[in-house]
Amino acid sequence: MSFTIEKIVELVGGKLDGDGAIEIFAVSSLEKAKIGEISFFEKADLSELTKETNASCLFVPENFEDFLPCTLIRVKSPKLAFAKIFEKLHPQKSPTVKIHETASIASELKEIRAGFVGEFVTIGRNCRIGENSQIFGGVKIGDNVLIGSGTIIYPNCVIYDNVSIGDDCIIHGGAIIGADGFGFVRDGANGYVKFPQIGSTVIENNVEIGANTCIDRGALGETRIGEETKIDNLVQIAHNAQIGKRVIIAAQTGISGSSIVEDDCVLGGQVGISDHATLKSGAIIGAQAGVLPNKIVRAGVWWGTPVQPLDEYKRQNAHVKGLARLKEELKELKHWLAELSGKIDN
Amino acid sequence: MSFTIEKIVELVGGKLDGDGAIEIFAVSSLEKAKIGEISFFEKADLSELTKETNASCLFVPENFEDFLPCTLIRVKSPKLAFAKIFEKLHPQKSPTVKIHETASIASELKEIRAGFVGEFVTIGRNCRIGENSQIFGGVKIGDNVLIGSGTIIYPNCVIYDNVSIGDDCIIHGGAIIGADGFGFVRDGANGYVKFPQIGSTVIENNVEIGANTCIDRGALGETRIGEETKIDNLVQIAHNAQIGKRVIIAAQTGISGSSIVEDDCVLGGQVGISDHATLKSGAIIGAQAGVLPNKIVRAGVWWGTPVQPLDEYKRQNAHVKGLARLKEELKELKHWLAELSGKIDN
Amino acid sequence: MSFTIEKIVELVGGKLDGDGAIEIFAVSSLEKAKIGEISFFEKADLSELTKETNASCLFVPENFEDFLPCTLIRVKSPKLAFAKIFEKLHPQKSPTVKIHETASIASELKEIRAGFVGEFVTIGRNCRIGENSQIFGGVKIGDNVLIGSGTIIYPNCVIYDNVSIGDDCIIHGGAIIGADGFGFVRDGANGYVKFPQIGSTVIENNVEIGANTCIDRGALGETRIGEETKIDNLVQIAHNAQIGKRVIIAAQTGISGSSIVEDDCVLGGQVGISDHATLKSGAIIGAQAGVLPNKIVRAGVWWGTPVQPLDEYKRQNAHVKGLARLKEELKELKHWLAELSGKIDN
Repeated sequence: MSFTIEKIVELVGGKLDGDGAIEIFAVSSLEKAKIGEISFFEKADLSELTKETNASCLFVPENFEDFLPCTLIRVKSPKLAFAKIFEKLHPQKSPTVKIHETASIASELKEIRAGFVGEFVTIGRNCRIGENSQIFGGVKIGDNVLIGSGTIIYPNCVIYDNVSIGDDCIIHGGAIIGADGFGFVRDGANGYVKFPQIGSTVIENNVEIGANTCIDRGALGETRIGEETKIDNLVQIAHNAQIGKRVIIAAQTGISGSSIVEDDCVLGGQVGISDHATLKSGAIIGAQAGVLPNKIVRAGVWWGTPVQPLDEYKRQNAHVKGLARLKEELKELKHWLAELSGKIDN
Repeated sequence: MSFTIEKIVELVGGKLDGDGAIEIFAVSSLEKAKIGEISFFEKADLSELTKETNASCLFVPENFEDFLPCTLIRVKSPKLAFAKIFEKLHPQKSPTVKIHETASIASELKEIRAGFVGEFVTIGRNCRIGENSQIFGGVKIGDNVLIGSGTIIYPNCVIYDNVSIGDDCIIHGGAIIGADGFGFVRDGANGYVKFPQIGSTVIENNVEIGANTCIDRGALGETRIGEETKIDNLVQIAHNAQIGKRVIIAAQTGISGSSIVEDDCVLGGQVGISDHATLKSGAIIGAQAGVLPNKIVRAGVWWGTPVQPLDEYKRQNAHVKGLARLKEELKELKHWLAELSGKIDN
Repeated sequence: MSFTIEKIVELVGGKLDGDGAIEIFAVSSLEKAKIGEISFFEKADLSELTKETNASCLFVPENFEDFLPCTLIRVKSPKLAFAKIFEKLHPQKSPTVKIHETASIASELKEIRAGFVGEFVTIGRNCRIGENSQIFGGVKIGDNVLIGSGTIIYPNCVIYDNVSIGDDCIIHGGAIIGADGFGFVRDGANGYVKFPQIGSTVIENNVEIGANTCIDRGALGETRIGEETKIDNLVQIAHNAQIGKRVIIAAQTGISGSSIVEDDCVLGGQVGISDHATLKSGAIIGAQAGVLPNKIVRAGVWWGTPVQPLDEYKRQNAHVKGLARLKEELKELKHWLAELSGKIDN
């Protein structure tokens, strides 16, 4: 696959500055780009390093003012244009239809049109898998699982019974979807009785799920991940959590049972959301922050445990850092007061 | 399986209020319950929502005062009664004895009575697996592993050599039991020498272990998880940790080497316990809290890093939040003092 | 394998105190050691417990002054000597060359000299695996993967395409090496476009990687883990991170994209390093600490979120703990001032 630069401008927009007839074959980084490759640069002026790129074409910001010995495409967001042209230059190939001979597929299967089913895959009863989906080696799929078309499940993932996964999802290696939620009822000295974990897990279209991430099934209801949501590695999403559309969840974050994360939220890494909390649409939670049970967090940027608006957090942090000075001032006041007191007594 | 409501009262206790002859077939949530199903409600009065349940029977608190058009069973803990009747209505079936033809089982096997061994399972030498246990697809079991009866190991778990797992345990997908502990001795500029990790891991009866959780083997001694302890997903338990009975450990918590968590402790999510710490029986540690090395934490509720008693933590947090006001007061005092000083000098 | 104590002194150094002719067969803990076994003790004087060891030989510190009824070897670091003699007494055996019949190995394979390839392993095209390496059951290896000699990959790991792993590495069960980094570009209301994740992952020699740990591939460049670095369980290392040599990373720590951790750093558990941060050689980061984006952290001990030098952190913590007293003092000053003010007005 290749495009002329003119064609690229047609595909992703922007203003051409230079020779549009050059053929582009691949994307690359500034440092590694070779002739015939396209890269991007996000600042208006160049560092020394950048001047040495061998790329044949660069996406640059509209206000880019420096000189570069290659064709430029001026765009609003060079990074976005770069990501878009990558998709065009390297489209996901329709896999050669192939069910590996070692895959173990239940005979009570409803319908399997997957493009690829790899080695040592197990697929349970009454499953449906859509066209062009790829199930890599060692994936274990339970009973009554629905998987849409164009979805990729990387090696050694486990999909429990009754899970539903949409179209064009990517699920990375070792992810566990639909395991029992963590629910027990204390029975005095007898220990714990397991609360039923018989609900379902629904992953909507275009969701990406990171390596070794865990998304539990609902207890009685469902756990749901909305369209276009992107989840990083080692994330925990507990039973009955409701994650909206276009939510970004960075690595090692944990979302407790029955919590709601509305559309377009962004969660940093290692964030903890307690049970029954609600993040309203547009909330942005800084890394390592913690949200208390039942809290409602409005749109805006939040940080700390328990979370505070970022400005407040910063102000408070500054106050804490000023404590040594505060103590000093108090001491000075005391001296002054003692002095004054002496004067009066005299 | 089904019971009349009268039979249910007999099985889990409570006071019948309504028609006891109705047959119950399944548990469900308030919202989704249909005729013939039982649910539960934990408050004394009803929300609008609840009035619309189609359940045939509800567990309610003893002091429940509202009206509902279905049979009620008044109990001390509706949720506990519900969990108990779930177990009776949906008993774990004895699996049809089946060793899948693709499973690879060492011939030097001591004794295997497991109900089910799934596809692509590997079992090493000198293992013993008890009756009715189920080893799902892709599980890898090393040498000299003992597994009791009625235990379920979900797909793609890894059980290293010399691990011992009791009866009626549940181990969720991707959990890794008995990997080497993390121990190295610095050898100056040469880097690190690996400290021997040749101990064992013991999981007692009725333990549940979450998806992708890791429990390391002892270095020279053993790592032990006590009876009835429940561990959530993505938890890390390091070498030589001693976890007592009926301990609850929420997701993404980490327990460092040689730490002791005594019986009936509760640990929230993302808690960090440093090495050689001791949580005394009944300690409750709030989410994201951190316990320092060698600390002894008494019974009670603790929060923050380093952990403090919850009351102290809250008081301190209030003080910090009051810092802006404190600075203001100090400023006022200074003005007052300056004024007074002026008066005196005049 | 066995050595006389004299031979052990020759192998790991130290000063012999007692009978050097005794034969030693194994290492063990003080409590469990039997005749013919060697253990170690790190303090200069004995606890009651220690007096009861049945070990035939103990490594003790040079200044050890107590009496023990067994041969002693006085060394600078008893633990290091113990770890070293363990390696000598229990050398890793060259595995019997065996490719399990169920392993699925692409025919376009470049070169495979591995000592052991276990059950249900998949190896892709153009891979090279060095001598004496062991690939345990269920491991999935993609295309164009290089693995050195003497490396052990435990069950159910996933190695994506284009990953390079050096000699004598140990990768524990369920680890995922080379999954896509977490990179998306927001495209307004349309959601997110995936940023290309087409770089590589390089693991140098003598690296140990814990169970269920995830190390992503570079976006356009590479993610690199330096020689002799040791990584615990459930750690997240994001795209393009550069981890130096002899770095220690404890469990559940997360290192964000493009961060640099220089040689000989030590990171406690549950630490979070934001993107584009740099830890200079010799930085030691306490458990649960957090480093902000783009920060440069010098050598020394750091703690808290955001990280501070340990001393500062402690001082600040003391100030916060003193806030109740500070408020009290302010109140007293106010009373004093009011009193004084009264005097003046009279």
